[in-house]
Amino acid sequence: MLSKALVKYINSLQIKKYRLIHQAFLVEGAKSVRELLHSDFVIEKLFITETFYQSNTKILHKGYAYEIITEEDLIKAGTYASNNAALAIAKIKKPEPFNPSQNLFTIALDDIRDPGNLGTIIRLADWYGIKNIICSQTCADFYNPKVIAATMGSFCRVSATYVNLPEFLDQYSSKFNIYGAALNGQNIHRLQLHPEGIIVMGNEANGLSPAVAEKVKNLIKIPGFGQAESLNVATATAILVDNFYRNIEE
Amino acid sequence: MLSKALVKYINSLQIKKYRLIHQAFLVEGAKSVRELLHSDFVIEKLFITETFYQSNTKILHKGYAYEIITEEDLIKAGTYASNNAALAIAKIKKPEPFNPSQNLFTIALDDIRDPGNLGTIIRLADWYGIKNIICSQTCADFYNPKVIAATMGSFCRVSATYVNLPEFLDQYSSKFNIYGAALNGQNIHRLQLHPEGIIVMGNEANGLSPAVAEKVKNLIKIPGFGQAESLNVATATAILVDNFYRNIEE
Repeated sequence: MLSKALVKYINSLQIKKYRLIHQAFLVEGAKSVRELLHSDFVIEKLFITETFYQSNTKILHKGYAYEIITEEDLIKAGTYASNNAALAIAKIKKPEPFNPSQNLFTIALDDIRDPGNLGTIIRLADWYGIKNIICSQTCADFYNPKVIAATMGSFCRVSATYVNLPEFLDQYSSKFNIYGAALNGQNIHRLQLHPEGIIVMGNEANGLSPAVAEKVKNLIKIPGFGQAESLNVATATAILVDNFYRNIEE
Repeated sequence: MLSKALVKYINSLQIKKYRLIHQAFLVEGAKSVRELLHSDFVIEKLFITETFYQSNTKILHKGYAYEIITEEDLIKAGTYASNNAALAIAKIKKPEPFNPSQNLFTIALDDIRDPGNLGTIIRLADWYGIKNIICSQTCADFYNPKVIAATMGSFCRVSATYVNLPEFLDQYSSKFNIYGAALNGQNIHRLQLHPEGIIVMGNEANGLSPAVAEKVKNLIKIPGFGQAESLNVATATAILVDNFYRNIEE
């Protein structure tokens, strides 16, 4: 059974302030915890059920300290009613600065508030082999449990660098083409795109902020054939990024 | 102020059983309610704030019965802490059968459980002009408030037909090409696709069920360049659907 103090500590990590104080975050669910075990994140605590233990003995025997608890205790302690496998507390990594020579193509997010959207975009980045994304300071926190859950383990391979976005874009405007979605942009289906440059995606409700929009020189659009005014931002990011990879051999 | 009985009624509509009993559903937020007012859904109750009233007088004067309430009351009554504009109760429409001559291209969902994913896919369908999607009986309910919210108003233009999916695919297998995502499928970037046929998308965790997979004759894949094992289902649907529209003039 988990002690009251431990449950309190786990709960506190749902809040950014306490994640910063403790420099720790929650990872929940079989898939995410399995990926965590294979990553270079430092694990502080690991709670697993007997079932998770049975199907992950090999990696667990590499020397992780774990505690086997019941499904009920796990569900009580964590964020998700459906997590009946594993919960880990891992240490936050020191943020890496953006490395322009290793990230020829990247996604920059301007004020993406919804943790599910951020997590889904991180998972998408991982699918296309993008190792680092850029976030404005007002984006959801990378280590929010809902972000981590939505990445489905991709948080182990994709990092996020939080920056002052207008300044960042200014700094790299001579090195990179900067793309952004706009209704008066060029139809992506008619362009020959290559994964080089920075795609900037705007806030769910308000799009790009004026200071950021000013820095976007290459306006592109996803052609629409119906009446929706816009797409979900993770959906739009997916369609745009896929169009950049069309001419690349897998 | 809303009466206790009314608040209880609104709350009950978060649950499918009560939506079926009352044949009614909730629509929340400025954007969704505005689209509802412009649609042919029958509105049973309409609660709006003074601010929403001021910016929507024209449509409201077309004869809708509405009640102006405070933001606090609206937030208390509804599902979303952030809805400070409008809440409507609308009547569920009689489900329309699938019309193959009007829907030459459609999306069929096999056991999509997450309401956010279903809503996002409905919004996507609306962007590409797809009027009707097909859902297996185990998919999330179209009228779930979280589905409605995620559609951002597209529930007014896209309908969902709930079917026994293997039987449905059998019925239309001679008329339509049936596509499904599979790791051993053909690379969508190397195919000349047109928006004709049925794309079948599988469950978030388990993919296509065996009975459905059997009916899918055209296996296609989104090429991956990184290490993510899969994409979020709404994301994957977006990328696939976009690839079908590449050769269409806007």
